[in-house]
Amino acid sequence: MTESMQRDPSVIAAGVDLLADAIETQAAPVDRVDWQPPMPGTEADLATVAGDPRRPDANAEAVRRMLDVRAHLVDVVPAREALGLGPGDFLHAGPPITWDRASGPMRGALMGACAFEGLVDDPERAALMLASGSELSLEPCHHHGAVGPMAGIVSPSMWMFVLEDPVSLRRTYCSLNEGLGKVLRYGAYSPDVIDRLRWMANTLGPLLQTAVRAAGPVDITAILTQMLQMGDEAHNRNRSGTLMLLRELGPALVAAGSSDDAAEAIRFIGGNDHFFLNLAMPACKLALDAARDIPGSTMVVAMARNGTDFGIQVSGTGDRWYTGPANTPEGLYLGDYGPDDANPDIGDSAITETAGLGGFSMAAAPAIVRFVGGTVPDALATSRRMYEITLAESPRWSIPALEFRGVPSGIDVSLVCRTGILPQINTGMAGRVAGVGQVGAGLVTPPAEIFPAALAALAGAVDAPSV
Amino acid sequence: MTESMQRDPSVIAAGVDLLADAIETQAAPVDRVDWQPPMPGTEADLATVAGDPRRPDANAEAVRRMLDVRAHLVDVVPAREALGLGPGDFLHAGPPITWDRASGPMRGALMGACAFEGLVDDPERAALMLASGSELSLEPCHHHGAVGPMAGIVSPSMWMFVLEDPVSLRRTYCSLNEGLGKVLRYGAYSPDVIDRLRWMANTLGPLLQTAVRAAGPVDITAILTQMLQMGDEAHNRNRSGTLMLLRELGPALVAAGSSDDAAEAIRFIGGNDHFFLNLAMPACKLALDAARDIPGSTMVVAMARNGTDFGIQVSGTGDRWYTGPANTPEGLYLGDYGPDDANPDIGDSAITETAGLGGFSMAAAPAIVRFVGGTVPDALATSRRMYEITLAESPRWSIPALEFRGVPSGIDVSLVCRTGILPQINTGMAGRVAGVGQVGAGLVTPPAEIFPAALAALAGAVDAPSV
Repeated sequence: MTESMQRDPSVIAAGVDLLADAIETQAAPVDRVDWQPPMPGTEADLATVAGDPRRPDANAEAVRRMLDVRAHLVDVVPAREALGLGPGDFLHAGPPITWDRASGPMRGALMGACAFEGLVDDPERAALMLASGSELSLEPCHHHGAVGPMAGIVSPSMWMFVLEDPVSLRRTYCSLNEGLGKVLRYGAYSPDVIDRLRWMANTLGPLLQTAVRAAGPVDITAILTQMLQMGDEAHNRNRSGTLMLLRELGPALVAAGSSDDAAEAIRFIGGNDHFFLNLAMPACKLALDAARDIPGSTMVVAMARNGTDFGIQVSGTGDRWYTGPANTPEGLYLGDYGPDDANPDIGDSAITETAGLGGFSMAAAPAIVRFVGGTVPDALATSRRMYEITLAESPRWSIPALEFRGVPSGIDVSLVCRTGILPQINTGMAGRVAGVGQVGAGLVTPPAEIFPAALAALAGAVDAPSV
Repeated sequence: MTESMQRDPSVIAAGVDLLADAIETQAAPVDRVDWQPPMPGTEADLATVAGDPRRPDANAEAVRRMLDVRAHLVDVVPAREALGLGPGDFLHAGPPITWDRASGPMRGALMGACAFEGLVDDPERAALMLASGSELSLEPCHHHGAVGPMAGIVSPSMWMFVLEDPVSLRRTYCSLNEGLGKVLRYGAYSPDVIDRLRWMANTLGPLLQTAVRAAGPVDITAILTQMLQMGDEAHNRNRSGTLMLLRELGPALVAAGSSDDAAEAIRFIGGNDHFFLNLAMPACKLALDAARDIPGSTMVVAMARNGTDFGIQVSGTGDRWYTGPANTPEGLYLGDYGPDDANPDIGDSAITETAGLGGFSMAAAPAIVRFVGGTVPDALATSRRMYEITLAESPRWSIPALEFRGVPSGIDVSLVCRTGILPQINTGMAGRVAGVGQVGAGLVTPPAEIFPAALAALAGAVDAPSV
């Protein structure tokens, strides 16, 4: 529904400017709309899907289920315990991928994880083992109820946040955030990276476990509500979220260990503005997983990238991935890095946009333009544009600068195909060479072709319904 | 400088609408400006002050000095030590006042402070002692380098934040924030209020002292910069500021005392979104005090209210107060309270507006309209209007929603008189009856007449310059 539908009648001019210009010279009000034709070749599928009698109720049900979920942080445990990972089992971000097609940062993170797990002494030696692949397993986080930012590597000894919906008792998982710069998830694997992972596994994880079990559950959904009023969009700004988590867990952390360890944990969390990202992501996945597998629903339930491919999953077509080559973000670079240093889009963090946060909520976080580029009017326009391709406005998460309008939630494959408007993602940028780490942050969209591919599958399911 | 000066030429229509309407029907662009004549009776004084050759340089110097100050939290000590207060010495908010003219919340807070200091067993018995006044001293916080929110009562045993400018080594002081609701500064004096003050004096103050001496100095000016990007305007929203203070001091608090005390202190600070207000206020006073006593400067260096009178001080006329009856705020009420329960405007917290924060920066804190009333467009319009009566835009504090424009800083008495635009303050509302506590929060302006009075004194100083 466009805003113009709610206003007094006026001229709406789409396409060429000649008509609009002519009317405007006569001092009549004109609404210029960025209209474009549907994505090429989608007309027939759009008609088929539009005519699917299941669609309206299916999408309403998908929206209702997504918006009903509350995400509570209930525990912190090692991945071997949370996800049943055994030695040599690794999870990664995005749709499925193998070593031979993996990008630099994905390879670097896997090499570092092998060293962290003690499979090799030197990360450089892990490459051969990973290339042969014989003793190792590599599967998407999303296939195990988990999400991981950037490379998203999860190995058995990493500790995971456990989020739970108190009604359905469904759970999702995410690793603990390491900070920015030279960190495993950006593909770095130097000794300080591995040392930090060891401290996180030996000290931070157990402390957080004790604190969460004593002070939890922590209502992550409610913190996200507050964050949007405090300049965070929960993808690349998680400052207030991190501080609110610290407020919730601080007193229990003090009691959870020695005062030195507690002080170090509080300093580590407080010194990493992105710490809360790894709670925002599984909270969004928990909400979106509720909307999976509704026949006829055209709602996107996951967007994820592995650094090579960008993939989406859609409610009405089960676990199938629609993938295309990941674009490379454009934005602001750290230090001397430039566009040539950036890897294509990577990470499960686009789950935040899938749920209406991140790029979709940039109007709530105008200061983010200093991190990802662009201007404040761009940020406002981006959020407004996302309402054109979404099914709902969240009753729980709202944007003060848009007069508390709910965030645009639930991407509709058919709206994307009909308008040609692509979901806007803001994201960190990894160096394309293994070992480099973060090189910047910026803006990116999915490859356009995955939406017509998903639409075709939805249309096919109308012709041959599974139910 | 108005925005229209930066645009292409167009018709600017002020006053009656007839002309503007006629032009608009001819489809020409019209700028409608809220022009009004100068405040009545100020024409001659405006001309005199405008002609004062000292004025441009004096105001530039006042602005430069104000903006150069950085406020560092360097210590936490009892008021008897920080300010040399002895038994029976009390400080209060606003311009000078005596018991006989004091409002309900001011009286209630003084009665509670007498009980807290052990001068009486029962606060009710303090009223007689205070009315006789023989053994007590009652002076404004501002006369002692201090500021206090709401009633602003400071007694010798209360602990004070100590802020210091690292260049000049000048210092300002403020008490520790008690939270909202039934608290001394809103005029409540029940046993739980006194008990909380005792815990603050016996436990919280000493812990903060140890933590600040170990981890400080804490750059309060820098935290204020971040707050404006995180939805706080530092008067009635101090959420992110409070959390950032906790981040700075958390690890040191853990080491400062028993784990029980540390956990309780972290819980108390984290549970009070307004805790940082008592740091924002002395930071603003530290900046504004630097701009005092510049002959010819028309800049306001303090706005303060005692619950009966609203007073301002102006750089060019020393310590003189210009006072008028305080207005009563309009806004949102707690529980069953309503407009009849509200006391007139009270507290030194309008020092935040004097420095460009609070009401002047509401565009940075759109969610504040849920606390003080109004709409988000109102908040944006308020900040924009304040540029009309201020001398500068802060290079350090900026408003993301206004594309990072610096906050409107340095109220000019002559601009207020010439435009008739009054400074916009947002504020808590105290119950008018002693003992009640907070009844709401809202918006208020100073009594208009104090600005012409200040202008007249500035004009008099031109005729008979002191230098």
